[in-house]
Amino acid sequence: MKHNFSAGPSILPKEVFQQAANGILNFNDLELSILEISHRSKDFVEVLDRAVALVKDLLNLPDTHKPLFLTGGASSQFFMAPMNLLPSGQTAHYVDTGSWSTKAIKEAKLFGEVNVLASSKADNFSHIPKDYKVPSKGAYLHLTSNNTIFGTQFPSFPESPLPIVCDMSSDIFSRPIDAEKYGLIYAGAQKNMGPAGTTLVIVNEELLGKVDREIPTILDYRTHIKKNSSFNTPPVFPIYVSMLVMEWVKKQGGLEAMQKRNEGKSQLMYGEIDRNPLFKGVSAKEDRSHMNATFVLKESGLEKEFLSACDDAGCEGIKGHRSVGGFRASMYNALPVESVQVLVDVMQEFERTHG
Amino acid sequence: MKHNFSAGPSILPKEVFQQAANGILNFNDLELSILEISHRSKDFVEVLDRAVALVKDLLNLPDTHKPLFLTGGASSQFFMAPMNLLPSGQTAHYVDTGSWSTKAIKEAKLFGEVNVLASSKADNFSHIPKDYKVPSKGAYLHLTSNNTIFGTQFPSFPESPLPIVCDMSSDIFSRPIDAEKYGLIYAGAQKNMGPAGTTLVIVNEELLGKVDREIPTILDYRTHIKKNSSFNTPPVFPIYVSMLVMEWVKKQGGLEAMQKRNEGKSQLMYGEIDRNPLFKGVSAKEDRSHMNATFVLKESGLEKEFLSACDDAGCEGIKGHRSVGGFRASMYNALPVESVQVLVDVMQEFERTHG
Repeated sequence: MKHNFSAGPSILPKEVFQQAANGILNFNDLELSILEISHRSKDFVEVLDRAVALVKDLLNLPDTHKPLFLTGGASSQFFMAPMNLLPSGQTAHYVDTGSWSTKAIKEAKLFGEVNVLASSKADNFSHIPKDYKVPSKGAYLHLTSNNTIFGTQFPSFPESPLPIVCDMSSDIFSRPIDAEKYGLIYAGAQKNMGPAGTTLVIVNEELLGKVDREIPTILDYRTHIKKNSSFNTPPVFPIYVSMLVMEWVKKQGGLEAMQKRNEGKSQLMYGEIDRNPLFKGVSAKEDRSHMNATFVLKESGLEKEFLSACDDAGCEGIKGHRSVGGFRASMYNALPVESVQVLVDVMQEFERTHG
Repeated sequence: MKHNFSAGPSILPKEVFQQAANGILNFNDLELSILEISHRSKDFVEVLDRAVALVKDLLNLPDTHKPLFLTGGASSQFFMAPMNLLPSGQTAHYVDTGSWSTKAIKEAKLFGEVNVLASSKADNFSHIPKDYKVPSKGAYLHLTSNNTIFGTQFPSFPESPLPIVCDMSSDIFSRPIDAEKYGLIYAGAQKNMGPAGTTLVIVNEELLGKVDREIPTILDYRTHIKKNSSFNTPPVFPIYVSMLVMEWVKKQGGLEAMQKRNEGKSQLMYGEIDRNPLFKGVSAKEDRSHMNATFVLKESGLEKEFLSACDDAGCEGIKGHRSVGGFRASMYNALPVESVQVLVDVMQEFERTHG
């Protein structure tokens, strides 16, 4: 049996794989595949409407906040957010917490002034900056809620007089949020939401229409609001699977249940990292991610042996990102606690044999 | 049994559905789903490399021409093409053959001068314009090779001293092309190539780097050439299925075989449209599309009855687009000739009962 700790694309619920495979062979008993039906067919429009309703329901969105299913990944939102929300000459504030926010900052500079309000770059992004005050003047505050590579996560969000634009790619649907605070939320699907191929964007429509620049039709959020994510052919199958995953989340008890489940797993994981004399965690304890636990061997040299022991136990995707090294255990919503226990067992066995 | 004449997303080979469903349950015997593995894993990199190799092989691309698997549909290429290829102040020439080229023209105007070289708009796009000469001055000539809505297709391409930029969304891989002529080819996957969710872009890299404007990183074709379509997480599953479809095309004998197969089907279809006293074709005979046959009842009034007869025979997606009315039979690569025969039988039966 495999235990999938991959950082993304990543584990999804087993029952969703079965439903998705069935949908490919015979969708809704139509004797047609979900891959060959029109995106304007009644059957797919129902899927899309249900997906939108589930986003609203799970995140408890106010009516101003419109969920869109786009493509291009969070990387496309790095430029689309300022293109739509940052009038030229105005300032957007960014908190720099890792590679992804660094990339978001780079793209925003093409559209207006960017103020890096705080950064943990000097510490290789091992913590979330805390000592800053969000100005009251500016277009928005940009945050990256969870940093997959470095294993940090905002434990809570700063008070902000400005609307928050937040990249939630790696922790959306993992805990409840206060949606009112956000002007824009975006997330590539391929962690907690679904397979690679669609990007969820939630935009407060009251913030739109305030920039002067000419925006290509398909890059204007208003186009997609007006056309209910079907201005052109949407990524039918990735949206279908995302809908199935959100149904699963709802059935498990919604985001409160997800949070409890995720905290249980991360407690088990970090408990072992802290207890085991061979290992140590990488990120600041107070900012540890419930999604991605980063850790290293206290004394280097046995990395290959540990990865090989993980492999033997069926634990996949444990190798750390090259910018941090060591190991990373990603524990997204769909990962069962039993898989974390298997990894903990491997670490304990490793202590016995190599301690 | 269903006969899928849908205009897109549309029919794909039956065996591909089976392979795709298997890949969702257990990909490459990894005991993991294709939906949950990393896009940087050896197994997916092999899929992507194979997909690129198949594009090169099937279209016989010169080394200068790089296949990219992007997202956002042809609609995103409407602005990306001029953004990357049209220096401000220079002119791009467009032939206007339907809704899609009209949209492409609209987006190009944001970046430079657009010259509509020829248009069949006055005739509701029922033919492909012929009386024009491509100027030798300009950035490129833009064509839409097949017009899904109106049922027209370029029977051959104009002589052009300029590189051709061509939207081949609805007829790529349906016939051989002379790739050298094209500076850029783009196609949403969801007709002949695969499911919705990826967009094939083939760019002659010698044409890049000639515009001055600042381009967001992910909108610059050079980014994707350099990163082999993996600058960020690509749409894993749509690319996988596209690879399977291209393998199928190759196994059938490649594009010459596809062309023969498609011409056989369209001959059968248009033969019946021309013979049957109840029906008539919509588009000019010399420009009829081998992909989408558009036709109407000579005397209106029985449209609902005919659609209902199609439905009873399992023929799906026959209703014409609202801008043309009547009927449309899309006959993409994967549609078997037997399905066309079923539709022809319905038309003949309709003649007996309503003639």
